[in-house]
Amino acid sequence: MQKQHAIAIIDSGVGGLTVAREVMRQLPQEQIIYFGDNARCPYGSRDPEEIRYFCLQMVDFLSQYPLKALVIACNTATAVALEDLRERLNIPVLGVIEPGARAALSASRSGRIGVIGTETTIRTAAYERALRRIHPELYVVGKACPAFVPLVEQQLQHTEEAVRIVKETLAPLHQYDLDTLILGCTHYPLLTSLIAEAMGETVTLISSAEETARELSMLLSLQDSLATARGDGVEHHFYTSGDDVTFRNIGEAWFGCHINVQRKILEKAPNF
Amino acid sequence: MQKQHAIAIIDSGVGGLTVAREVMRQLPQEQIIYFGDNARCPYGSRDPEEIRYFCLQMVDFLSQYPLKALVIACNTATAVALEDLRERLNIPVLGVIEPGARAALSASRSGRIGVIGTETTIRTAAYERALRRIHPELYVVGKACPAFVPLVEQQLQHTEEAVRIVKETLAPLHQYDLDTLILGCTHYPLLTSLIAEAMGETVTLISSAEETARELSMLLSLQDSLATARGDGVEHHFYTSGDDVTFRNIGEAWFGCHINVQRKILEKAPNF
Repeated sequence: MQKQHAIAIIDSGVGGLTVAREVMRQLPQEQIIYFGDNARCPYGSRDPEEIRYFCLQMVDFLSQYPLKALVIACNTATAVALEDLRERLNIPVLGVIEPGARAALSASRSGRIGVIGTETTIRTAAYERALRRIHPELYVVGKACPAFVPLVEQQLQHTEEAVRIVKETLAPLHQYDLDTLILGCTHYPLLTSLIAEAMGETVTLISSAEETARELSMLLSLQDSLATARGDGVEHHFYTSGDDVTFRNIGEAWFGCHINVQRKILEKAPNF
Repeated sequence: MQKQHAIAIIDSGVGGLTVAREVMRQLPQEQIIYFGDNARCPYGSRDPEEIRYFCLQMVDFLSQYPLKALVIACNTATAVALEDLRERLNIPVLGVIEPGARAALSASRSGRIGVIGTETTIRTAAYERALRRIHPELYVVGKACPAFVPLVEQQLQHTEEAVRIVKETLAPLHQYDLDTLILGCTHYPLLTSLIAEAMGETVTLISSAEETARELSMLLSLQDSLATARGDGVEHHFYTSGDDVTFRNIGEAWFGCHINVQRKILEKAPNF
């Protein structure tokens, strides 16, 4: 593995930009090559076989770059495609579920942990399994929030409607006396302030995005493959299967700087 | 590496119990074998060669147990002995410095980070190097606090004298406008409330103990060597080169439960 090779990040859309931003902040010497499959977003209610196929398509395309690690920056894709991609690729593959689970275990004092995510993420109980594999005696409750991703993808997070939807969706969680809530979807950090307000001050929110960047840092460090300073700076590349102008608008608002976005249409998948 | 093998933790004394407690909390299925070199504590002002020799003595003794990982739960020992132990042992060796550095990078928004530790830890600038290796553009300031470890080892942390010493020692740090302070010594989490009061609310304290337990969890998970449930529970073993009654008192106060402590005198080291 070469130190100056890039880190590939794949996601169903713009949610993985939260992971990309954390990687840029925590590992500013690393180059990122990102693919957002906006044309087929959201993944949350799709067939697992179909999601695995989509992930392989993105990875195939990104393999034109020399890569040293792959981050699946989508909880749904991590839940269904992580093992498959780990078997197929000869570079380390990180998902966002285990980092989030470990951070929640570190943060929770009462052992009462909530997970919010897409329907598929919650249905696969991937967080619950990751948590219980490490610590069998936890109280874990999951809640699917299918309305959240569209709010972000349609840039509605600053509207009154978003406030109402977030509040109503999370209200049933109050009965469980949680002290920690995992944002089990990489779109959700874009709704952090609304979620924090809906849950109240006593609940610690865990962003898988931050945690995944940190575990990537640990992994590169352990393998002695952290990038060193580049004389000409770092140039990241972003690809989307959807509309590049929308993607650029969301990305630039999130990063606060210009980003280089290209549209790349992926072949239609077979029927699943 | 066997899943049910133990995790060895070595420290200059009782400071590493903060790491042990976090490992127990975050990884309750793992067995811990601990060695505290209280008879020769503190390490903070000793010769690096001597510290490496002490670490090897502890590891040699603990090798009677089947081990799957070693944690050097002492910042001073990590600063001078980590590389040496990594080369000599065929199990993963974790120190406490890199986990603390990565957590600080994740927590800091302003990039103005302070490090407190023993004289040797600060003199070797081990945190500064770990931080800059990942992120070259940080403001890092170190402050040696040689009076802190004796406060903990002599169980004086709840006295007025401790409040005064902590406040006076940390006062010079206020001028640097830090947003994050690394507790770069595993004894310091036992002084957390005093340090938090002295630094003020705007400074996030990073405990290497918590972070190291979390990175251990990640490492075991990546290597698929997390322990599975044990029918007869987990029995930890604690050894000290010093007084076992004092060690047990400090340990039981810290864990809130009975612990099994044995004294083990190590051979006198050659002169360094």
